[in-house]
Amino acid sequence: MTSEPAPRNASNPTATAVTVIGLGPMGRALAGALMTTGQRVTVWNRTPGKADDLAARGAVLAGSPAEALGQAQMAVLCVVDDDAVASVVEQAAGSANLKGLTLVNLTADSPARTRTLADQLGTHGITLLDGAIMTPAAAIGTEATRILYSGPRQAYDEHRDLLAAFGGSAYYLGDGVAAAAIYDVALLSLFWTSIAGLTQALALTRAEGLQPEEFTPHAAAMSQLVTDLLPGLAADFAAERYSGSNSATIDSLAASLNHLRSAFTHSGVTTDVLDAISSVVENAVHAGYGADAPIRLADTLQR
Amino acid sequence: MTSEPAPRNASNPTATAVTVIGLGPMGRALAGALMTTGQRVTVWNRTPGKADDLAARGAVLAGSPAEALGQAQMAVLCVVDDDAVASVVEQAAGSANLKGLTLVNLTADSPARTRTLADQLGTHGITLLDGAIMTPAAAIGTEATRILYSGPRQAYDEHRDLLAAFGGSAYYLGDGVAAAAIYDVALLSLFWTSIAGLTQALALTRAEGLQPEEFTPHAAAMSQLVTDLLPGLAADFAAERYSGSNSATIDSLAASLNHLRSAFTHSGVTTDVLDAISSVVENAVHAGYGADAPIRLADTLQR
Repeated sequence: MTSEPAPRNASNPTATAVTVIGLGPMGRALAGALMTTGQRVTVWNRTPGKADDLAARGAVLAGSPAEALGQAQMAVLCVVDDDAVASVVEQAAGSANLKGLTLVNLTADSPARTRTLADQLGTHGITLLDGAIMTPAAAIGTEATRILYSGPRQAYDEHRDLLAAFGGSAYYLGDGVAAAAIYDVALLSLFWTSIAGLTQALALTRAEGLQPEEFTPHAAAMSQLVTDLLPGLAADFAAERYSGSNSATIDSLAASLNHLRSAFTHSGVTTDVLDAISSVVENAVHAGYGADAPIRLADTLQR
Repeated sequence: MTSEPAPRNASNPTATAVTVIGLGPMGRALAGALMTTGQRVTVWNRTPGKADDLAARGAVLAGSPAEALGQAQMAVLCVVDDDAVASVVEQAAGSANLKGLTLVNLTADSPARTRTLADQLGTHGITLLDGAIMTPAAAIGTEATRILYSGPRQAYDEHRDLLAAFGGSAYYLGDGVAAAAIYDVALLSLFWTSIAGLTQALALTRAEGLQPEEFTPHAAAMSQLVTDLLPGLAADFAAERYSGSNSATIDSLAASLNHLRSAFTHSGVTTDVLDAISSVVENAVHAGYGADAPIRLADTLQR
C-alpha cells in the first residue's frame, strides 16, 4: 500500500475519505466493496432512500453533491448517463473547492463526452480517471470483476490500491482518457451482436420445431469456436493479413449469407441482422475485396 | 463393427465399397479419411484432375456419376450446392439401378431442399442421410471434426462405423431429415453474426487509434463471456423465462444500442449491423416487451 495517499480531510488518518455518487445496483455494490476494505465512505444519490443499508453499515449520507465531493480525496461516479455526470459536477463545483480531487467515472459514457468531461473537470482542478465496468453489479468485490481504466497514469497509480476494493482484475489502458470508453463501446457492440446471433439461431430452431435444449451444446461449441478463432483473426487484422483461403473468402461468405437468409425467410424468421451483414459483405465485394479473407471487412467498415 | 453391412458389389469382402462425389478440399479430405481406414473408395468429380493423389493411393476413378454410384454401398456427396446434388442424382439414376443405396449428403444445403431431395431420392429407392460438417477440411480425420447427421435412424446406425473414418464427433439429430441442415443454418448464422460483431469492434478500436493487439484479450474475454452465458440464455428461451433484471431489459438494451451507434458514428465506423439489431429491439419495445429480458427477442423474430 505504498502508493496510498494521505486523506484530504480526514479525522481517521488510517482510512481514506472516499465518496460514491449514484446508488443504483452498481453504485451500491461499489460503495459496499469500499466499506468492506475499511474506507470512510460518503454517499449521495439524486433520489433519497437508496442508501439505507449502506448507512446502517456506517456510510455517511451527504446532503448534496458539493457536500459529498467536498469531503472526498477520491470520488467514484456511477450515475445514469453523461448528463447526470455533468449535473453532479456543476452542482458541486458551484459551491465547493474541488481542486485536487480525483473523479473516477464509472458511468457508461461515450469516448467523445469523456474527452469533453476531462477538459471541463480540468478547469476545476479535478482529475478524471475514466473507467468501464465489464461485469454485472453482483460480481463487484469478487474475483470475477473486470474494470478498465484510462486517464493520467499518476492518478491511476495513486488510487489503484483503493480501486482494488472492487476485486477481480483492473486494467490500465493508458493516458488517453477515452480509451476505457472506446473499449466499452467496442466490447458491448461485440457482446450484443453475438447475442443477436444467438437469438436468431434460437428463433430458427424453434420455428423449425426443434428443441432449443438439444441445439444448445452445438451453439455453445460454435460460440467457443469464435472465442478460439478470435485472437488469430484480430492478429490478421492488426497485421493486415487479408489473403483468403479456399474455404473462406468474402465472395464465399456473400454466397453463404444468401443461402442463410433464404433459409431463414423460408422458416418465417426475420433476417434484419443477416441482411445488414450481407450488405456490408456486398459492399466489400463491390469494392474489389471478394477474394480476401472475411476479416478484411473490419477494414471496410471505416468510412 | 457389428453393424457394418455387407458390401453391395464387393470383390474384397473385408472392405466396403464407398463412393465420394465432389473432390474440392472437403471431398478430398473425406475420401482420404475413408481410404485411411481401409475402405475401397471410388471417386468422381465434375471436372477431372482433382483425384490424382487419391488415385495414387489406390482410389478408383469413375467415369460418370452412374459408374461411381452404381458400385457403391454408401456414397458421400460433397459438391458445391443443391443444384449440383440434383444434377449428380439425375445423371446416375438415369442409367444405373441405385435401389438400396444410402446417400450421405454433406453438401451445404437448405432445410427445404433437403426435404425435397429426400423425397426425390426415395422414388429411386435411395435413402438420404443428410449431414452438416461444422469444421474445416483440415480437421477431417482428426479429433476436431464435428459432423451433424439427420435422417432415418436405420441408415445412420448401418453406416456409423464407416462414418467414424471422418474422426472427431458425430451427432445424430433424429429422423427428421432436415435437422442437420437447420442446425447448419442456425450455427452458421451464429458464427457469422459473432464475427460481424468482432469486425465492428476491431474497426472501432483502429478508427480511434488504439492497438488491436491490446484490445484482443479483452475481446476474447467478452466472447468467452457470451459462450459462458449461452446455455443459460438458451434455457431461459426454452422455458420462456423472459422477466428482465435491473441491469438488462429490452428497454435498457434499446438505450444502450443508441449509445453504441452514436459512438460508432462519431468514430467514423458504419453502423449497419447495430442499426439492424436496434430495429429488432425497437420493434420489441413497440410490441410491449420493453421490461422483458433481451432473450425474449428470439421470440419476436418469428413472424
